[in-house]
Amino acid sequence: MTRALTETIDRVLDGVNAISAPGPGVTRPSYDPLESRAHAVIAEEAGRLGLTVERDAALNLFARLPGRDRRAPALYVGSHLDSVPQGGRYDGPAGVAGAMALAAALIERDTPPPVDLVVTVTRAEESVWFPASYIGSRAATGRLRAEDLAVCRADTGRTLADHMRAEGGDPDAVLRGPGRTPATFLEPHIEQGPVLVEADEPFALVTAIRGGLRYRTARIAGTWAHSGGAPRHSRADVVFALADVITAMDRHWAAILAEGHDLAVTVGRVDAAGPEHAFAKVPGALSFCIDLRSNDTAVLDRADAVLRNEIAAVEAARGVTFDLGAPSRSVPTPLSADLTDRLHAAFGRQGRAVRRMLSGGGHDAAAFAQAGWTAGMLFIRNQNGSHNPDEAMDRADLAEAIDALAAGLVEACAP
Amino acid sequence: MTRALTETIDRVLDGVNAISAPGPGVTRPSYDPLESRAHAVIAEEAGRLGLTVERDAALNLFARLPGRDRRAPALYVGSHLDSVPQGGRYDGPAGVAGAMALAAALIERDTPPPVDLVVTVTRAEESVWFPASYIGSRAATGRLRAEDLAVCRADTGRTLADHMRAEGGDPDAVLRGPGRTPATFLEPHIEQGPVLVEADEPFALVTAIRGGLRYRTARIAGTWAHSGGAPRHSRADVVFALADVITAMDRHWAAILAEGHDLAVTVGRVDAAGPEHAFAKVPGALSFCIDLRSNDTAVLDRADAVLRNEIAAVEAARGVTFDLGAPSRSVPTPLSADLTDRLHAAFGRQGRAVRRMLSGGGHDAAAFAQAGWTAGMLFIRNQNGSHNPDEAMDRADLAEAIDALAAGLVEACAP
Repeated sequence: MTRALTETIDRVLDGVNAISAPGPGVTRPSYDPLESRAHAVIAEEAGRLGLTVERDAALNLFARLPGRDRRAPALYVGSHLDSVPQGGRYDGPAGVAGAMALAAALIERDTPPPVDLVVTVTRAEESVWFPASYIGSRAATGRLRAEDLAVCRADTGRTLADHMRAEGGDPDAVLRGPGRTPATFLEPHIEQGPVLVEADEPFALVTAIRGGLRYRTARIAGTWAHSGGAPRHSRADVVFALADVITAMDRHWAAILAEGHDLAVTVGRVDAAGPEHAFAKVPGALSFCIDLRSNDTAVLDRADAVLRNEIAAVEAARGVTFDLGAPSRSVPTPLSADLTDRLHAAFGRQGRAVRRMLSGGGHDAAAFAQAGWTAGMLFIRNQNGSHNPDEAMDRADLAEAIDALAAGLVEACAP
Repeated sequence: MTRALTETIDRVLDGVNAISAPGPGVTRPSYDPLESRAHAVIAEEAGRLGLTVERDAALNLFARLPGRDRRAPALYVGSHLDSVPQGGRYDGPAGVAGAMALAAALIERDTPPPVDLVVTVTRAEESVWFPASYIGSRAATGRLRAEDLAVCRADTGRTLADHMRAEGGDPDAVLRGPGRTPATFLEPHIEQGPVLVEADEPFALVTAIRGGLRYRTARIAGTWAHSGGAPRHSRADVVFALADVITAMDRHWAAILAEGHDLAVTVGRVDAAGPEHAFAKVPGALSFCIDLRSNDTAVLDRADAVLRNEIAAVEAARGVTFDLGAPSRSVPTPLSADLTDRLHAAFGRQGRAVRRMLSGGGHDAAAFAQAGWTAGMLFIRNQNGSHNPDEAMDRADLAEAIDALAAGLVEACAP
């Protein structure tokens, strides 16, 4: 392993993670000055290595190291630098640091890549800020739509177009542009679950990315009442109603898994904590969100139907009214079997039996795959899941994965 | 019915309800300048009628109309003027307006009451502000303790002693004082449930007041995780855990009612809506409160034990940890059967068949009863429950109850 590889990983991760809004963990909102400052850290690092830096109209960053075959489709490697609120230090930055470390290792060894290597830093991957998936990578591939630019950031209420412009981007040009020529996109990323930790393996190949169906602004309306004065039969209690729906969905979730399908059900936010809520009042209103994920669109549709059935039953039983609000969706996406097979074989010849696994979370690689690119992912072992301040990747695991990738690059990616 | 009676009701209710913090409904916090201003409205009204006004060290207000027998124990009639946040116009003020209207009617008819009539306005009845029950009435009866004065108001974080002092009270004197000589306390109050509306009856007599067991600051700790990355078996999801406990308590509640016991279970506030909560995160922390009410201490204790059992089961099943925090309690309290019987008989001789019923909510009358006073209550019909902006008492119902009380006063309250 080259010294440039580990030093670059350290420098990129430390540089990027010095940039965050105050509070626990890391907060770098999408299309925020903080995200732009993190991108500037990468531009500086690329300059140090002599890479050519380019930004597209959506402010995705591309830093190019020329390959032996300059006309073949390039190999894009990278990830994103925005984070969820109070997230961790590795969801996104690990892949960017890995990509830059790959370039640094090849330069240090003076072995150009088989094709152009493009260190890629996307924008706005975390859809918690703007209710739209894979904004930067869809812009890069010519698939962002006018209606996406009109969505508003959850904290500021300002549109994506506004925020993009404020950071120096050009939303009109994003809509006009055809997107980059399809090539190969490989995304190193921390695993967001415990599989590699439990298996004691440093990294894995990802075969497919789950899709999601989310209701981010669901509400329940019931009847406010005095907690001592309202008899049980007269109540329309929204907290009890939500509890009914959650326990019912929990049973369906277990049953669908038992049939061998893939599904995750999460209610990440419940707000029955406004100024009108008090211990002595039967709650008459609340808001919540629900997130369904699966590798199978049919399972998502089935879970959605089950949810609506359970809601109808609870509405009838409790006299409350649910309003799920507008759904947002991302499609389950298989990654390139060919690329994954070639990487698997290359790793195998290095004596590494690298696991193939599903990605539970969504990633930019899905957007590239949906746009017809050859897309793949490497998962890096990570403690404590992601989207929280306790993400704990061992940098040595990332270095090992990138070192293995560097060694297998010709085999996996030669045109 | 005298004109003074209805006009006094209108003037008191309009005057008091002109005083509120901004926002929907009525917000008059306990020991707040707004509560003091509402008390001043009553002092002014008492002055207009020529009553002698006195405030005790806890700032309870007493306005006295001399009776025929000045040495017999007085008849205190009244209620409170603080409200829950975003509460209604009648929970509390109806009883104060009724008491003042009773005095006005007796004065207009030039018929002194059989004993001194003391229009009574307590402080801090709504325990949503300070986590302590019946603060003003316990102070008036010499039963407030030093530890009560140290509790902090939910919104300001300042102690009861501080707030009492800021309004002109003397907390040290409250602790020293023996309290008033036990007499009779009668509290007119809106019904907080739908019983009288459904029965089409204007008012009722209350036989007993439910007690309560509340956990106001309960918390659950679990594990934050990525909603797509964390497999079902690895999760410690606090929202699912709370849903389990709520649906279990709902079943127990139905079963306990089916056995013929009295119980109400309310989870009035659930806060899984902090900056760290997001749709893409398995929630790892939340806070909530739970309110158990019954007319039977044994049922409260049983519900508490059931709650703790269910929590232990959910903790074991889901790998989360509950911390219920400190409980606060109020004791189920029977009111004076003798006073209630005398009023019932007096109303009966007026041709009124007045229902006897339980009070689901807590009231100052319970504190007076616990202090050895002869205590009773009149419930006035009210739409839409209480503790919400839609409380809707018909003032004619209050006037009818007070008119009936005035006509039965000698019979019910003569020494």
